[in-house]
Amino acid sequence: MNTDNYPSRLLEAATSEFASLPGIGKKTALRLVLHLLKQDLADVEKFSSSILQLKKEIRHCKSCHNISDTDICNICASAKRDHSIICVVENIKDVMSIENTHQYSGVYHVLGGIISPMDGTGPGDLNIKSLEEKVAAGNVKEIVLALSTTMEGDTTNFYIYRKLQKYPLTISIIARGVSIGDELEYADEVTLGRSIANRTLFEASFNGGKTG
Amino acid sequence: MNTDNYPSRLLEAATSEFASLPGIGKKTALRLVLHLLKQDLADVEKFSSSILQLKKEIRHCKSCHNISDTDICNICASAKRDHSIICVVENIKDVMSIENTHQYSGVYHVLGGIISPMDGTGPGDLNIKSLEEKVAAGNVKEIVLALSTTMEGDTTNFYIYRKLQKYPLTISIIARGVSIGDELEYADEVTLGRSIANRTLFEASFNGGKTG
Repeated sequence: MNTDNYPSRLLEAATSEFASLPGIGKKTALRLVLHLLKQDLADVEKFSSSILQLKKEIRHCKSCHNISDTDICNICASAKRDHSIICVVENIKDVMSIENTHQYSGVYHVLGGIISPMDGTGPGDLNIKSLEEKVAAGNVKEIVLALSTTMEGDTTNFYIYRKLQKYPLTISIIARGVSIGDELEYADEVTLGRSIANRTLFEASFNGGKTG
Repeated sequence: MNTDNYPSRLLEAATSEFASLPGIGKKTALRLVLHLLKQDLADVEKFSSSILQLKKEIRHCKSCHNISDTDICNICASAKRDHSIICVVENIKDVMSIENTHQYSGVYHVLGGIISPMDGTGPGDLNIKSLEEKVAAGNVKEIVLALSTTMEGDTTNFYIYRKLQKYPLTISIIARGVSIGDELEYADEVTLGRSIANRTLFEASFNGGKTG
């Protein structure tokens, strides 16, 4: 269905706002808008205000740059977390992913992106300076690099490594290897090669690779 | 990614609002919300108000029940349309679809649904009474039924037919048959059977089946 003939300018405006979201085409946008139009006014007001309120009131944790309702996020404020281990991630989704594994009890540092000359993102655009300040202040024993395995991720890892190598701490990187449940014959060569080169002691695999 | 560990209640609220939309899961909702969060406040305000304004200010055409910015929609208000032919459709998307074919110059009547005992929708919930009133007022020569080819659509067609058969007008139904571009061997038996039973004169196919 072509969607050029809107019977209403208001409908067209709302549809085009939804169609500006990533992965939402004109057809889906129209479907979503018509769905909302069928809801009660109170529900539409709740929908509409939820996103505006988020945008207006959201804060970034002053310590780890994760988004938060408060100046210091729950993780950074928690006495149960090990503040001497900092896991460096690209964005808040990565924090949520790692939190969901329940395998990590340190704190985080959200870079807000990775170094990508193609997208015009340089080290100055990322939260790297504040990471170095945290490390320079002492009390940090380990930095765990958990960025994407892409050229940009590798570049960023190396940049951070160069900045921090003068400090007395361990810089580790999350293990790369064959995914659990994957069959070897379907693993790509680079991953399989890396998983052989970085093989670990069989006994160490008993504790599920827990860290922190 | 499991999305249970929201770092912010505001983020969780906005994500759950988006996830309430049809076909949008928690993951997609989070992606959309984070995308909006990256936009300027003015853009988020525009997004937020577009849907609220639509809900608050939208009207339904008093004649055809299509949604409209005015009391009478553009189609019903147009002197270029043939007001003696009324095409009965389920919803406003169907109006847009038919308008996009540029093959119809009559007016519409939007039922606002179809008779569906499973969903609790009876004839009284639909705009059928106002259709009969329009017909009873005279000046209507033809009613074109353009509902879905489902049991509900057929039931609704038959209900409308029974209501209107006492009036002196033609009641037609859109042609069902093998889609243009489809190969016969892939057409389902019911459709193919219907397309043979309802075969038309070859000469009549020259004008592209224009009506109205």
